Amino acid sequence: MPYVNIKITREGATGEQKAQLIKGVTDLLEQVLGKNPKTTVVVIEEVDTDNWGIAGESVTLLRQRE
Amino acid sequence: MPYVNIKITREGATGEQKAQLIKGVTDLLEQVLGKNPKTTVVVIEEVDTDNWGIAGESVTLLRQRE
Amino acid sequence: MPYVNIKITREGATGEQKAQLIKGVTDLLEQVLGKNPKTTVVVIEEVDTDNWGIAGESVTLLRQRE
Amino acid sequence: MPYVNIKITREGATGEQKAQLIKGVTDLLEQVLGKNPKTTVVVIEEVDTDNWGIAGESVTLLRQRE
Amino acid sequence: MPYVNIKITREGATGEQKAQLIKGVTDLLEQVLGKNPKTTVVVIEEVDTDNWGIAGESVTLLRQRE
Amino acid sequence: MPYVNIKITREGATGEQKAQLIKGVTDLLEQVLGKNPKTTVVVIEEVDTDNWGIAGESVTLLRQRE
Repeated sequence: MPYVNIKITREGATGEQKAQLIKGVTDLLEQVLGKNPKTTVVVIEEVDTDNWGIAGESVTLLRQRE
Repeated sequence: MPYVNIKITREGATGEQKAQLIKGVTDLLEQVLGKNPKTTVVVIEEVDTDNWGIAGESVTLLRQRE
Repeated sequence: MPYVNIKITREGATGEQKAQLIKGVTDLLEQVLGKNPKTTVVVIEEVDTDNWGIAGESVTLLRQRE
Repeated sequence: MPYVNIKITREGATGEQKAQLIKGVTDLLEQVLGKNPKTTVVVIEEVDTDNWGIAGESVTLLRQRE
Repeated sequence: MPYVNIKITREGATGEQKAQLIKGVTDLLEQVLGKNPKTTVVVIEEVDTDNWGIAGESVTLLRQRE
Repeated sequence: MPYVNIKITREGATGEQKAQLIKGVTDLLEQVLGKNPKTTVVVIEEVDTDNWGIAGESVTLLRQRE
């Protein structure tokens, strides 16, 4: 019954990678806490780099300097 | 003053249906808890089926098997 | 499969009232969008009035003036 | 290490305005609580007006009457 | 820079188990998406069984029938 | 109408400090985006250090090494 929300910047995660995240988190909750995978919900949200801030500035700016 | 966040898969909910959800949840909070509807906020988030996992796999895969 | 998060101030909602919210929201999602109630998840979070702000001040202060 | 999630209606906030929100919130947490800005995360989510409800109706309808 | 929020029912997860969740999710995001673990944030929220609903009823009731 | 959720570790923030956060965020949204403070909602959540992870470990462990 756990609910997991994963927020990442929108920078090209593929369907395959997202499927791996869903599988990996569901497995982890079963292994660590014995949670039934049947009712584990995982929601991935991809956020534009303009809308994600770290250390007081957007990831858009951060990426430009890299 | 309640805040309600409804997450559903993005599978064609219409503006009319979303209006019904907003009205229904706001009414419910008034009936059950006496919350003033004026300041009840409802936010609906529609999530791509690739980004929603249940039972360890994405809803995209689930829908393909249905 | 919907996930609903209801945030209210912690001001004495009873177990019975919370059960009504859970039932009401689950029914609403079935009626409006045909969502299977079996996998509808509702999480209620009760927030201390010190930690809830509206119009720039805490609900604690708001309640003192009422 | 704080995590701040700002939800607003999608009504044309610019990259510059979003940068100001990120900077402003990060500064505020440093001033008030001494939080290290390096690890303060701010995520802005812009929500379609059809998907945002207040007082039992969508912001789309609200805006039409204004 | 990912942000992960894990919600589970409050049913006795230990500090050790929570540490395993934090480590496991952080590792997963590094393996699958190459995310720098230094800035991966994981927040676990434990929710009273009265406040968690599935299939239209609270987990408190569900547990009583098990 | 914005909704802001601030998550911080539970490490002794006072009512006064939380009031400053509420006021500061509400003011910021008015200054930057012209948002009406009357309907700006701010919810602060304080999370136990066992339940907050950064860089793959809990803040409880992090604090012990400081």
